[in-house]
Amino acid sequence: MEQKEILELLKDFYENQMPFDRLLGIQVESLTPDNTRVRIDMREELIGNFVRGVLHGGVISSLLDLTGGLIASVELVNHMQGLEISEIKRRLARIGTIDLRVDYLRAGKGKFFTASGSVLRKGNKVAVVRTELLNDQNVLIAAGTGTYLVN
Amino acid sequence: MEQKEILELLKDFYENQMPFDRLLGIQVESLTPDNTRVRIDMREELIGNFVRGVLHGGVISSLLDLTGGLIASVELVNHMQGLEISEIKRRLARIGTIDLRVDYLRAGKGKFFTASGSVLRKGNKVAVVRTELLNDQNVLIAAGTGTYLVN
Amino acid sequence: MEQKEILELLKDFYENQMPFDRLLGIQVESLTPDNTRVRIDMREELIGNFVRGVLHGGVISSLLDLTGGLIASVELVNHMQGLEISEIKRRLARIGTIDLRVDYLRAGKGKFFTASGSVLRKGNKVAVVRTELLNDQNVLIAAGTGTYLVN
Amino acid sequence: MEQKEILELLKDFYENQMPFDRLLGIQVESLTPDNTRVRIDMREELIGNFVRGVLHGGVISSLLDLTGGLIASVELVNHMQGLEISEIKRRLARIGTIDLRVDYLRAGKGKFFTASGSVLRKGNKVAVVRTELLNDQNVLIAAGTGTYLVN
Repeated sequence: MEQKEILELLKDFYENQMPFDRLLGIQVESLTPDNTRVRIDMREELIGNFVRGVLHGGVISSLLDLTGGLIASVELVNHMQGLEISEIKRRLARIGTIDLRVDYLRAGKGKFFTASGSVLRKGNKVAVVRTELLNDQNVLIAAGTGTYLVN
Repeated sequence: MEQKEILELLKDFYENQMPFDRLLGIQVESLTPDNTRVRIDMREELIGNFVRGVLHGGVISSLLDLTGGLIASVELVNHMQGLEISEIKRRLARIGTIDLRVDYLRAGKGKFFTASGSVLRKGNKVAVVRTELLNDQNVLIAAGTGTYLVN
Repeated sequence: MEQKEILELLKDFYENQMPFDRLLGIQVESLTPDNTRVRIDMREELIGNFVRGVLHGGVISSLLDLTGGLIASVELVNHMQGLEISEIKRRLARIGTIDLRVDYLRAGKGKFFTASGSVLRKGNKVAVVRTELLNDQNVLIAAGTGTYLVN
Repeated sequence: MEQKEILELLKDFYENQMPFDRLLGIQVESLTPDNTRVRIDMREELIGNFVRGVLHGGVISSLLDLTGGLIASVELVNHMQGLEISEIKRRLARIGTIDLRVDYLRAGKGKFFTASGSVLRKGNKVAVVRTELLNDQNVLIAAGTGTYLVN
């Protein structure tokens, strides 16, 4: 497979093949080696607290975790070009979060939220990714750092 | 309100008043000063990966976060006895996660999972709570440490 | 005291009044509201591993912790102008680290290292600060996120 | 080499071969598969704050990091029996901290401090270790969670 096809596979994997990602309702808005961005639209089911009407902390940690995992996966795509689809799927399925830190910085108010990030450590065993969640006014809601097993 | 009533209020708050907790389907199995335990039953929507059929990392971080928040809240209940319900609700609504670390230790296989924990730091401003998630075979699936703003 | 004097006091506090900072041999190169930078020169005592000749992980975590504390303190200085020196000292002594995450990204090779950072969360109770450690070639050696009690 | 010899080598490695560990003045009190304990005696150079006379946060993070590293190393020793000393040294030198969380729970007052811990995740690539620091009155001063690269 070529890079573009693998990235499409990865997008489909996260948007459609993971039941909990579907339950959350995430959309992978951008997925390129330079720019990965995940969006979620606010809806009542994602609220943590009726009184304040803000995004639940669990939605925030889920978004930062999966966005970091996507970014760690994109890093690997360059090394996957030319491989068979079965081997690519096998390698993508092996990527997993080892640990995650989330800093909840401000109440999650907004109509929609976008998560993005950057790689701090590229490795053949472990990757470290910093992520951020912004609301529709580009206010920083939360920040994350995740360590991912990539092989 | 008395301690027992406040704990009932807190249980209802987590099980019924937080829309995302309802979406997850959590049950507060035990809520006493010595023993807080949250349960979630496995179902297809909570899966992270069809191939492996395991709990999504976001469900795990959500559970550890909310269990830590519950435990930090229970600590405060002793100081709330005799207060009006409106004041108690106001104080409970102010409790929030500052930061959280989650260690994903084993694949989340099981029919149900239970989260519990203990307080590392009791404070009048900040509490630190260590949490653990076990599956139905009592295998440790994930561990967490959360810092909570309690005033 | 005026802002400039308080910043001098803070610099002296970190460079000369904390015995372990003196043992490490840190220098506060810059301390302004926009730019805090701490430097340490490599020397044999700071090595973690003779074979590889790199900075010990404990030196790295110490530097990121104290740099984050300095940055959290500088944030408070604006609110301290006009106060008596005794009150300022009292407030600065109360600032403390609640928790810290350090990501060790590359082996700490270099003749000197500089730590800097930025505030993610400004609060009247808790501040969150992201920090980075670079070597003399501006290579990122480690990254940190610390939560500080500021009142 | 046999297990007992390898553990002696590891003890010597931490106590005598790492210059910064010597500067700190750590003693490996116990180093067996079931019980690893590191001690440090309080002295003026380790103080973070003259006014309060407590252990510097950097000493605490250093101790928890190195104790976690020791515990991760001991786990590997079982797989090293029968290997040549050069190969054992090569493997031990490869062990490194990927990331660390430290929770500073109470002021570090005491005449001496001991750090110990337990393995949360044993892996052939990555180990996760929880650690704790107690003072001479067995009061919990700080807790840590570290992720270590073990191969």
